[in-house]
Amino acid sequence: MARNLLFGICYRGTRYHGFQMQTNALSVCDVLHQAVTAVTGTRHGIIGCSRTDTGVHAREYFFHMKTESPIPEDAFVRALNAHLPQDIAVLSCREVPGEFHARFCAREKEYVYQIWNAPVRNPFYEDTALHYKYPLDEALLDRAASAFVGTHDFGAFCSAGGSVTDTVRTIFDARVRREGKLVTFTVRGNGFLYNMVRILVGTLLEISEGKILPESIPALYVSGDRGGAGRTAPPQGLFLNRVVYDEAWFCTKQA
Amino acid sequence: MARNLLFGICYRGTRYHGFQMQTNALSVCDVLHQAVTAVTGTRHGIIGCSRTDTGVHAREYFFHMKTESPIPEDAFVRALNAHLPQDIAVLSCREVPGEFHARFCAREKEYVYQIWNAPVRNPFYEDTALHYKYPLDEALLDRAASAFVGTHDFGAFCSAGGSVTDTVRTIFDARVRREGKLVTFTVRGNGFLYNMVRILVGTLLEISEGKILPESIPALYVSGDRGGAGRTAPPQGLFLNRVVYDEAWFCTKQA
Repeated sequence: MARNLLFGICYRGTRYHGFQMQTNALSVCDVLHQAVTAVTGTRHGIIGCSRTDTGVHAREYFFHMKTESPIPEDAFVRALNAHLPQDIAVLSCREVPGEFHARFCAREKEYVYQIWNAPVRNPFYEDTALHYKYPLDEALLDRAASAFVGTHDFGAFCSAGGSVTDTVRTIFDARVRREGKLVTFTVRGNGFLYNMVRILVGTLLEISEGKILPESIPALYVSGDRGGAGRTAPPQGLFLNRVVYDEAWFCTKQA
Repeated sequence: MARNLLFGICYRGTRYHGFQMQTNALSVCDVLHQAVTAVTGTRHGIIGCSRTDTGVHAREYFFHMKTESPIPEDAFVRALNAHLPQDIAVLSCREVPGEFHARFCAREKEYVYQIWNAPVRNPFYEDTALHYKYPLDEALLDRAASAFVGTHDFGAFCSAGGSVTDTVRTIFDARVRREGKLVTFTVRGNGFLYNMVRILVGTLLEISEGKILPESIPALYVSGDRGGAGRTAPPQGLFLNRVVYDEAWFCTKQA
């Protein structure tokens, strides 16, 4: 009987047109497909936990895959790593119940957005942070970010092109911190709309620039006016940082 | 009268064949030459503080340059950054006395070597750390590294091809620390021989592997036997981290 395997990976997204397979553009999923085929001899269906954009990174990402392959979990991790390029790494593999779905079962996701905040760029953050030259007041932005917490209609913070119709999401936590010149926005929620984190970041930047008032955020949940929110921050600063599933999924051993 | 300008830069060395100009290979110095020529309209002599190898990085690096250009220091920084690629950044520019030399006046240099110590690679350290899969005992290596401290003949820790004949150097400090899976070797001294830091790291790794006894280090200062030291660790983990000049250089204003 086919096993349902859940793989944990991380990847540097710079070279890829996101996770999802695309026509005429290399995706993380394409490269995983090649590695899985090389290891098992068979093409498999790979279901990711999230559609990340071009250039977006993942410190933790999961996909599931049904397979007839008898390869043990640990050996699968090693074999895939041997067939993957340096910018993708498989961290874990575990068997999950047949009905487990990497995307639909995700209870919580955490994203981090990195900003190198200094007049001069940092060559070591070229592909992993936004370079923002003007002063950022992290205490001000941290207070502003608290307006994102709660259950809201985030339709104003969503790019056109997403397929969802229900734009209500719950944000559990949103904060801005500084370590030296690196300013980090961390947001944790039950789900995120297309480009939502990047638009939340763009909104914080425009609050810093005096173009958006922090007090105007709640009205955007009502109006759904994309034009009232900030610009879409560039992708290279964004990391999918953590994906949480109910532990119960991992206690049940499949028959 | 020509000013002598000291520039502080940092760079990600991945794309470059070291700092020094080479025939048929792109160096950091080549790219700086192009930017300086673009900004001033004239080709200048650029003297770096150190010859870094291919793939080695610098968090802090200095070069000096004599110029007739009237461009003020701050404007020079901005103009060069506008003409440089993302993996090189100019951090500072200051006028120094005519006899100041970026290499010969350096009193102290600090290098850092990063090791990602985990069974699985980290895509975010692909070009900025050595991936080392086997367990490293940082306390053991820290004790072993203390044998490098002092004034010694480091001839055994030097690759052939260097031009120096005096292989005596003074190491002020050498330590190994761990933060999670990242193990860092930091060494500070009055100067370093060709490949010296990478060979010190290779020696620590071979101590960890039981191939070299920590007690055997002092004898290598006497024998000068390169074969008794460890392998040359790969370049991508190495950073020139800090370069120190006597403050007195910066107090004297040139006439």
